[in-house]
Amino acid sequence: MRTEEDTLNQIDRARGRRLELNDDRVSLAHGSGGKAAAALIQAVFIEAFGAPTPGELTDAAILDVGQGRIAYTTDSYVVQPIRFPGASIGELAVNGTVNDLAVSGAVPQWMSVGFILEEGLAIDELRTIVAQMRRAADLAGVRIVTGDTKVVPRGAADQIFINTSGIGVIPAQRCLGASQVRVGDQILLSGPIAAHGMAVMIARGNLAIHAAIESDSAAVTGLVEAMYAAVDPADVRWMRDPTRGGLGTVANELARDTDLGVMLAEEEISVAPEVRGACDMLGIDPFYVANEGCFIAVVAPESAQAAVEALRSAGAPQASIIGEIIDELPGLVAVSNPFGGTRLMDMLVTDPLPRIC
Amino acid sequence: MRTEEDTLNQIDRARGRRLELNDDRVSLAHGSGGKAAAALIQAVFIEAFGAPTPGELTDAAILDVGQGRIAYTTDSYVVQPIRFPGASIGELAVNGTVNDLAVSGAVPQWMSVGFILEEGLAIDELRTIVAQMRRAADLAGVRIVTGDTKVVPRGAADQIFINTSGIGVIPAQRCLGASQVRVGDQILLSGPIAAHGMAVMIARGNLAIHAAIESDSAAVTGLVEAMYAAVDPADVRWMRDPTRGGLGTVANELARDTDLGVMLAEEEISVAPEVRGACDMLGIDPFYVANEGCFIAVVAPESAQAAVEALRSAGAPQASIIGEIIDELPGLVAVSNPFGGTRLMDMLVTDPLPRIC
Repeated sequence: MRTEEDTLNQIDRARGRRLELNDDRVSLAHGSGGKAAAALIQAVFIEAFGAPTPGELTDAAILDVGQGRIAYTTDSYVVQPIRFPGASIGELAVNGTVNDLAVSGAVPQWMSVGFILEEGLAIDELRTIVAQMRRAADLAGVRIVTGDTKVVPRGAADQIFINTSGIGVIPAQRCLGASQVRVGDQILLSGPIAAHGMAVMIARGNLAIHAAIESDSAAVTGLVEAMYAAVDPADVRWMRDPTRGGLGTVANELARDTDLGVMLAEEEISVAPEVRGACDMLGIDPFYVANEGCFIAVVAPESAQAAVEALRSAGAPQASIIGEIIDELPGLVAVSNPFGGTRLMDMLVTDPLPRIC
Repeated sequence: MRTEEDTLNQIDRARGRRLELNDDRVSLAHGSGGKAAAALIQAVFIEAFGAPTPGELTDAAILDVGQGRIAYTTDSYVVQPIRFPGASIGELAVNGTVNDLAVSGAVPQWMSVGFILEEGLAIDELRTIVAQMRRAADLAGVRIVTGDTKVVPRGAADQIFINTSGIGVIPAQRCLGASQVRVGDQILLSGPIAAHGMAVMIARGNLAIHAAIESDSAAVTGLVEAMYAAVDPADVRWMRDPTRGGLGTVANELARDTDLGVMLAEEEISVAPEVRGACDMLGIDPFYVANEGCFIAVVAPESAQAAVEALRSAGAPQASIIGEIIDELPGLVAVSNPFGGTRLMDMLVTDPLPRIC
């Protein structure tokens, strides 16, 4: 049983999250999407480059281009193994960047791709990956228009690393951001969580688990567009795809950036039984496991039901309202369980699963 | 003395350059910017993704965005060592992408940056690199607006790889491309060649050479804009920055894409004495050595002198007219020497210097 004192201590700890970088060397935690990664980004990158949108770090920059706005994003993919049930590094590299654009409210249009290849990589392997990228791009309605290839000697990279960047065009009526979020807004999740991270982990083959888990890697463009078509665009307030660091990290970013409370209902958050089983066996909280084919949206209460129904009709049968924006617990995430209990969900400190994307 | 038969054989060989990919595995040559790299790009990437501009492979895609056109490009940087006289991987990653935009006729605006870090990299090293990127971006008038960081375990990458992509806006009057090039057009080069490749090679420290050679890494934006300001924009027909594969490769691309002849005057192509000395000692042709701070422009004859003078006034004192587009030898590059001889300059087969950028 959690005591009130425990909860208060937890709140203090969570509130006191000043992101300091005290490390001398890069560690795997710095690549996790958790606190260590946030500290590195803050203390090194934002320090030098500045934050494009003051006070809020999103996965895509929004840029004014004459009459319109474009979204612009990048991600590198270093997943190991490079093939795993449900997808490969190639599909991931397309879908991940497409999804960063889609959750910026943009319609993805163009992508760049940069390959870093290890000497000795089988050309057939490369061909397969590239063909998978093309298929994924076609499915997402995006064109790969520019690219680059570097080869490094054997041992200087691990098979293949792929960087993609992407540009999307933002329709005029859309305006997303933490500043749009209001108390009472509903939090939607488009599908079940934790499949991608567990699929990759099991595919590594060094665990005594053989579960039939497939990555959820997919473009969410169609779902996002279906939702926008069903509601007043202004009612969609905030979106994010819970990749590295999972739902838990993204929910914490939402709470931090809005300085409002995020209350989630555990029983509404779908986790496939085989995924939950694998997480339980390994002692991993599915809330922190990476996803590559779902997204979270904060929607005005009057549009939430229509948005969920649009998602369900558009191919996300398990879309649901998983929570609400509250004015208590500003900056924090709380999760209620069906038995009446509530726990705080902190930001991930370090990812249990490096090289997951 | 070169016989006529030699020359004809050479022409046949050069014309017969069908780019076939017969390899099973990726080799360092595939990352060279030479023929093997072109074969890989053709047989694997273009095969899957298609060519954005039919018949011509440039470093940036040109995209229509409502009222305007943008240029969009990407490059990964894997240079070793990561610091060398004149620049570091950070400056290279900014200037290289800026230059790909500038030679597309675009004014560079925004950049993305993706870091792949090896576990154990010193944070101070990273900070230094990132600060150098910021300075280079400021100098080039470009903003780094989005980014990503991945960390891989020790041994899975070599210190740091950086991918950058960039977006530039193309002023309305500019129209570049192989199809714009006419017989009689003049070929301009903005500065001396081969310094970057030799600086990096010597910095590796495994050669018995200690020459004071600095990389030419720099943004050419200012030079390109100065040139455009001095001439009718329509008179600038084609531009390219001779990075991997050097001037020789870029000149061959010009000949191939225009199906015209490229005649270069060896004595007009500036190579610093210490660079030439190092090339001679190592038996490397400076024409094939990578550059990171100069560009080639094909300019209408009536504007060529004004363009050169603009470049000289804008900080490129060694800018010169190095050649001309001719109707003989379609698809080929010939280099004349001051003694009246002429040799054909084929495309590079494999780069003598891997991991040069």
